[in-house]
Amino acid sequence: MVPHLITALTGPINELEQRILESMPAIERWFRLEWMEHTPPFYSSVDVRNAGFKLAPVDTNLFPAGFNNLNPEMLPLAVQAAMAAIEKICPEAKNLLLIPERQRNNSFYQTNLATLVRIFTQAGLNVRLGSLDESITEPTALPLPDGSALTLEPLLRKRGRLGLKDFDPCTILLNDDLTAGVPRLLEHLHEQYLLPPLHAGWGLRRKTAHFRAYEEVAKKFAKLLGMDHWLINPLSVGVSGNDLASPQGIEALQTQVELVLSKTRRKYKEYGINEKAFAVIKPDAGNCGAGILTVRDAKDVEDLGARVRERLRHCGEGAGAFELIVQEGVPTNERVNAAVAEPVVYMMDRYVVGGFYRVHADRAADESLNAPGASYVPLAFAQSSQLPRLGEKPGASAPNRFYMYGVIARLGMLAASYELEVTDPEAEVYA
Amino acid sequence: MVPHLITALTGPINELEQRILESMPAIERWFRLEWMEHTPPFYSSVDVRNAGFKLAPVDTNLFPAGFNNLNPEMLPLAVQAAMAAIEKICPEAKNLLLIPERQRNNSFYQTNLATLVRIFTQAGLNVRLGSLDESITEPTALPLPDGSALTLEPLLRKRGRLGLKDFDPCTILLNDDLTAGVPRLLEHLHEQYLLPPLHAGWGLRRKTAHFRAYEEVAKKFAKLLGMDHWLINPLSVGVSGNDLASPQGIEALQTQVELVLSKTRRKYKEYGINEKAFAVIKPDAGNCGAGILTVRDAKDVEDLGARVRERLRHCGEGAGAFELIVQEGVPTNERVNAAVAEPVVYMMDRYVVGGFYRVHADRAADESLNAPGASYVPLAFAQSSQLPRLGEKPGASAPNRFYMYGVIARLGMLAASYELEVTDPEAEVYA
Repeated sequence: MVPHLITALTGPINELEQRILESMPAIERWFRLEWMEHTPPFYSSVDVRNAGFKLAPVDTNLFPAGFNNLNPEMLPLAVQAAMAAIEKICPEAKNLLLIPERQRNNSFYQTNLATLVRIFTQAGLNVRLGSLDESITEPTALPLPDGSALTLEPLLRKRGRLGLKDFDPCTILLNDDLTAGVPRLLEHLHEQYLLPPLHAGWGLRRKTAHFRAYEEVAKKFAKLLGMDHWLINPLSVGVSGNDLASPQGIEALQTQVELVLSKTRRKYKEYGINEKAFAVIKPDAGNCGAGILTVRDAKDVEDLGARVRERLRHCGEGAGAFELIVQEGVPTNERVNAAVAEPVVYMMDRYVVGGFYRVHADRAADESLNAPGASYVPLAFAQSSQLPRLGEKPGASAPNRFYMYGVIARLGMLAASYELEVTDPEAEVYA
Repeated sequence: MVPHLITALTGPINELEQRILESMPAIERWFRLEWMEHTPPFYSSVDVRNAGFKLAPVDTNLFPAGFNNLNPEMLPLAVQAAMAAIEKICPEAKNLLLIPERQRNNSFYQTNLATLVRIFTQAGLNVRLGSLDESITEPTALPLPDGSALTLEPLLRKRGRLGLKDFDPCTILLNDDLTAGVPRLLEHLHEQYLLPPLHAGWGLRRKTAHFRAYEEVAKKFAKLLGMDHWLINPLSVGVSGNDLASPQGIEALQTQVELVLSKTRRKYKEYGINEKAFAVIKPDAGNCGAGILTVRDAKDVEDLGARVRERLRHCGEGAGAFELIVQEGVPTNERVNAAVAEPVVYMMDRYVVGGFYRVHADRAADESLNAPGASYVPLAFAQSSQLPRLGEKPGASAPNRFYMYGVIARLGMLAASYELEVTDPEAEVYA
């Protein structure tokens, strides 16, 4: 399925597409050189927003849970990438322990798990599932929508190693983003590869750190292509304090929102963009879509603090100290059947292995689509993203558009790699 | 397209399929460990023959020229594998010099070249074509069937390096099998990566050396699976001499043919196979399909020497000294639309990236299909080969069948890796 590319056939994004296509060998070489210095996350997904005048990643997920939404025909790409990843990490490996999210009643998530099991089995590993849920005390069937079943088993911790009964893995793959914190079972596993590492979990990870790393990556990449990094980089600032109900807290937030809005407006003017700038306020940690607030003018919102606090309550966060990121809003101009859509790109190791459109009929172009009611349109994303057609008219070719999305998503992934290096608590030991 | 699997639903091959599927993680791990010790050929293709009672590679090509026959939808697998290969060999590489065969008038071959250019461009290299044809003295357009064109350029040798005008490559990829010998231009290129190496060319390579290496690989693999290696290994012996017209020459050949036939008949008896054993006689070097002779009984063929000589003449070989390989014939029981077919599996680095059926309506199940009149049916080979369906009835599932073909083809590729280590003339320097 090829989406309706509603973005205009002229303007900055098509110049960017053109430049990215022309520079394909240079871009791929640049990534190769980056991967000589940095380690890609084991797997990741990146939400990309295409405003027509700007294209930027807005979320980089290090515990991707939508493998069920990928085009099954393109799964061999994921298998091949998994083979390459395993070969680097633990080529002697026989066993892989997969630790899923605690939630068990979501059939989409279960299919995501089944897809991961399939990918890693076919990459040559015995895959078993160990549950963080303490109510799992014996092997428990997890029925799948297609009539088959997975088995959840209780985790067994023996001194430095984590496994299952009669199952000692070389590598442990986490598919839980640790929003609830790091379970003691997972601490100090120095003898095994725990992927992603604990500091990639939302207990420790911060979006501000990610976007600081992304800015560095975007500047390097923009220099390579000789362009303004703003075209691929959403302005982001952090704001934190002790109390969002206090005048100091609200003022701090308003100041940062005004800063982001005024900078964005200046850029819109520079590029002749006739749209109203907006900012999004998100919790600095976690993937709670309900916590995202769209703001068009800090002064218009009299009770900004109260509204942010209300959003945070939806994410289970209490009053008191707050950590937020204020980010330039990037509208999405993609549509699938008239509904607002944004591409999500899936990666394994350094490779784009697939993607889909997240579609939300009830949301506007300036709102988060990561909310109840979203649906997913699988695309042969990787297929197209790796096989752009040189010489086609800019903006007219879905494969070329997808190649560009794959490049921007890989910039997000590379930023996550930088980020995890900077935030690695183990690294300090040797510093 | 799924081929008609004419092979019986019972018998040894389905037991083998079953065992290979059950052992998938063990098999993939075994390959991983082998690739820790050995370097896969840069690219390769393997002809596989499925007799129903036996499955074996019969030809391993280190200069594959049928990329045009692969399913275009699966090309991203080749791009990803090419990325992995380049990253290992020369991650800083900007430029790739591709050296095609001298023949220029074959539109299929031209499309093969265009496909290779596409794969390596999209893997992130500037690809240009340098011609071994001395009549190419300036950039020359090579028109393609689809209306586009490639450009052939004259090769420029400067001391230790080979390139084109204003083009200095890190890696040189040969797509000519050097049957005509090694051009001086290609000798002593110690500063660049020449892939495959010169001793992979048919001037130096011998099928007997390949099948000696394959026997070693097949024995190891059969031990892993607890089975008789004959089920995947065609008996092969070499025979050479000064004159195939002399009584000594003919006797030597007849002796080896009888040896192969009698060993094969013994195996047929052991497995209760009610077929007539046959042997194939092939030149020990080169890929000339017209040089292959099928023999059912050495004594029946009074003028065996004369008949072999006649075949060799088709391949441009003269009288006098001869080097032959006598191999157990493996009939093919695959059919596509009632025509005899054999699968050909394409690999890049260690990965299966595609495949097709070579189909020949005018040939019998015990004859070579690599002959004028053959046609090619692209298959989403890799797609299926990497995504077998566990739990399906043996012999009933094309994906499972293709996974098995991919495993056997990779055994052939691994054998080529062993072979090139043994025959490497540079290796002796350090021995």
